[in-house]
Amino acid sequence: MKNKFDNKSWIKKLNMKLFPPSLEDNTGDVDRLIKEINKAGPEIVNISFQHLQTLSGKLRKAKYQVEAVLYEDQNSWHLIDIFACNGPEKIHVIAMDLGSSTVVLRLINLENHETIGETTFHNPQIEIGSDILTRIHHAAGEGGLEELRSILINKINEEIIKLAQEYGIEIKMIIGMAVAGNTTMTHLFLGLDPYWLCREPYIPVVNSPGIIKAQELCLSINPAAPVLVFPNVGSYFGGDLIAGILASDIIHQEQISFLVDVGTNAEVVIGNRDWLMGCAGAAGPALEGGVADMGMMAGPGVIDKVAIDPLTSEIKIRTIGLHPPVGICGSGLIDLVAQLFLAGMLDLRGKYRSKCGSLLKEINGIKHLEIVSSHDSGTNKELTISQIDIDGLIRSKAAMYTILTTIANTVNIPLNEIKRFFVAGTFGSYIDPKSAITIGMIPDLPLESYISLGNTSLKGAAMAILSRQAKKEIHKIRDSITYLELNVNQEFMNLFSAAKFIPHTDSTLFPSVRM
Amino acid sequence: MKNKFDNKSWIKKLNMKLFPPSLEDNTGDVDRLIKEINKAGPEIVNISFQHLQTLSGKLRKAKYQVEAVLYEDQNSWHLIDIFACNGPEKIHVIAMDLGSSTVVLRLINLENHETIGETTFHNPQIEIGSDILTRIHHAAGEGGLEELRSILINKINEEIIKLAQEYGIEIKMIIGMAVAGNTTMTHLFLGLDPYWLCREPYIPVVNSPGIIKAQELCLSINPAAPVLVFPNVGSYFGGDLIAGILASDIIHQEQISFLVDVGTNAEVVIGNRDWLMGCAGAAGPALEGGVADMGMMAGPGVIDKVAIDPLTSEIKIRTIGLHPPVGICGSGLIDLVAQLFLAGMLDLRGKYRSKCGSLLKEINGIKHLEIVSSHDSGTNKELTISQIDIDGLIRSKAAMYTILTTIANTVNIPLNEIKRFFVAGTFGSYIDPKSAITIGMIPDLPLESYISLGNTSLKGAAMAILSRQAKKEIHKIRDSITYLELNVNQEFMNLFSAAKFIPHTDSTLFPSVRM
Repeated sequence: MKNKFDNKSWIKKLNMKLFPPSLEDNTGDVDRLIKEINKAGPEIVNISFQHLQTLSGKLRKAKYQVEAVLYEDQNSWHLIDIFACNGPEKIHVIAMDLGSSTVVLRLINLENHETIGETTFHNPQIEIGSDILTRIHHAAGEGGLEELRSILINKINEEIIKLAQEYGIEIKMIIGMAVAGNTTMTHLFLGLDPYWLCREPYIPVVNSPGIIKAQELCLSINPAAPVLVFPNVGSYFGGDLIAGILASDIIHQEQISFLVDVGTNAEVVIGNRDWLMGCAGAAGPALEGGVADMGMMAGPGVIDKVAIDPLTSEIKIRTIGLHPPVGICGSGLIDLVAQLFLAGMLDLRGKYRSKCGSLLKEINGIKHLEIVSSHDSGTNKELTISQIDIDGLIRSKAAMYTILTTIANTVNIPLNEIKRFFVAGTFGSYIDPKSAITIGMIPDLPLESYISLGNTSLKGAAMAILSRQAKKEIHKIRDSITYLELNVNQEFMNLFSAAKFIPHTDSTLFPSVRM
Repeated sequence: MKNKFDNKSWIKKLNMKLFPPSLEDNTGDVDRLIKEINKAGPEIVNISFQHLQTLSGKLRKAKYQVEAVLYEDQNSWHLIDIFACNGPEKIHVIAMDLGSSTVVLRLINLENHETIGETTFHNPQIEIGSDILTRIHHAAGEGGLEELRSILINKINEEIIKLAQEYGIEIKMIIGMAVAGNTTMTHLFLGLDPYWLCREPYIPVVNSPGIIKAQELCLSINPAAPVLVFPNVGSYFGGDLIAGILASDIIHQEQISFLVDVGTNAEVVIGNRDWLMGCAGAAGPALEGGVADMGMMAGPGVIDKVAIDPLTSEIKIRTIGLHPPVGICGSGLIDLVAQLFLAGMLDLRGKYRSKCGSLLKEINGIKHLEIVSSHDSGTNKELTISQIDIDGLIRSKAAMYTILTTIANTVNIPLNEIKRFFVAGTFGSYIDPKSAITIGMIPDLPLESYISLGNTSLKGAAMAILSRQAKKEIHKIRDSITYLELNVNQEFMNLFSAAKFIPHTDSTLFPSVRM
């Protein structure tokens, strides 16, 4: 059988019918296999020592009729495994979005690229520390790093096994994985000391971890499966964002695009097929619903949409799953503040106005606005947003806008000339661009400029595991991106102060809001 | 410091003074190291996952002033280790001759190629089986292969540690090893199943095991040290002979040479810089002193030289170390038979003649010649050689001569036109070519044609670990050699029968003996 050895994949399956050994051809078993692989294309084929010890037996058992799976890395090919040619087994790969709060696994058929199944779960490291800094601190304690690594890997393995069982797939038939996460998560996943990530001059152990075999990472897939770990540009610009750039396709477009991942860090990329600039800055946790008293991550009963009647000041809410309200997520908070402002209940500085009426209460000297009464609440307590919550959101949105302005100024492109504004990340996909524009978090572009890409970390990981071209581009992206170090200097502070108004001190920047 | 990255070695040390990290250059630690290595030459540098986990700490501890050692394989470079630039430590390598009875380790300074020390010891697998077939059989039993592997590796480790201690060298500073052994020994060393080596069609698990990391083989040297395992051409033509060809340098010469390794197997190579042909055939253990009642391997008190006065028939012997005689080795036996023949005590067919006189006794109906009286013997028993012992040697020498004739006939070159006849192996170096010619074991060439090379397996291993060119040539030799399968057909049997005379039925082939 002639094997087609195309250029599209970097993980391949080859069907091979070897001539069995004879007195006329006494080539060793392993060399026999390599020669046949050579015929299909790859010149340099690496066989691990472990394979040396088992290949001969497997070949003989399969009567020299086998499927070989291989992957390409650094100009050579590496054998992953061989399987007897006697079953309908299909080979699969996994793409992983390794978030600090949420991890998503996608199981994909490598042969037809179909998604077989997906699973989402909380990062178990949350038990040790909900935020990255706590985890870095924990890693410095005795056994801390290994604890963080192992609870994560164990949970991932548990979920892989569940997923594989659910779809009737043998673990050994999962023969590759791509992992996109931020720099700290990547370090913890690999068991690399994150100590210097948060200490000047913020140096990762490694920028490009490259490909590591599954067994070295203790992952429950085929032991020799390549695990492609996305590279980072620095401590604050991780593989998740490289995956995002890959998924957004901005590096193939002529027009200049923004790519923004909104979260505790505002991660921003600007560029096109010729150049890329990225920066990341602390936006504060407000945007993720992590600060407000009633703030929480998206989930059942969480308010994700708000509308206020400007005449009656009546607050209408929508919750996820239409359950009784229990809290508010970041996108809900953005909606709420936009609506409060448009209804005249917040002033330009984001302070509650008297128009709020009886809904506004003072608790311990701090103004709280009742959003949901105790009667309507899923917690039997009233849900309120304090002036402090609002102030936090204003700071976050101002930080985001300032970062966008700074990077646009650096490349000398006015914000309103950007044609496409990609929003990366699951969280970002919940944000209503109109509300975000209203509060002055993002530039006042035509709404159609805003394109939500969903989980770009996962999408990028899936692209990289499936495509040779995408795998190459990851490194092209990493190497070509210019990282803009945000200097919190006077100019930055001036921009930040100006952006702390709703929508902005210079209201001409937001003509749609002015109307 | 500018690193000279010459082409001579495939294991290199680079002195590197890295710029420490700064806010202006936040390159990751590992990537920083790789970039500096790239500057010295190698484009593709592989860093193992284990190194990923420790490099950052080592770099910081050494204040980014390090020596890196790397090896080249399959067009890329692999990091072995980094050391702080603060000591006079030198890096070392080991060459190993992995014999089935004797193992030799040579410790070499990689920087100036000086031999530091050497150690020779019995292969501990002898306890399980003195011959290869017994070991192959033992390996098929439960746990047998692992037992054979581990007693060998443990013994090698013990000897490495002793050697390193003796010369004050840290184990981690031994950063490479080359191993030349026959095909079965190589399999047992690697823990590869030798089952099919002695069963038609005699297929090795692998011909070219390539480079394996020391830790995978459980060797007590630097864990990431490359272990270059010599390839084989087949079950009966192993890495020891490839090492021999390398050491003999015949592949660089215009004139055609023979290379012969005399032992239980007669391994023969003929060729020059343009072509190589090899074959191996059973010669029987007689040549190694493995059959005669008083036969033994070379050692103190073993007879290695014999002279007989043709007039008085007095037998004069020399023993190793001049100790009282305890037995006879292969080279002594060849000498003895040659001298017996020249003294008229053996006839053309190798049968004892009456001229032996009173020294000839009959024990259980078999003629025995007393070589040493019980009075002079180191064992207090007389040392005798029986007709059966002589017959065994005649068969072995006839097999050797037949193999030489067959291979010379195949390439159509008369034996007497061969200009150089290299004798490989420690055993071969003890053989007196004149005696070997007298009994018709080797062709009647001018004595200066015979060049003993000593332990070519060890020499070849040392060349391969030290030189990039030699490492390449191993594979060139392996791939270019034509293996001649000895068919024991009528023609072979006719040649063999003719060679069973002393020196030969066709005495014109041995003019020097006729004289």
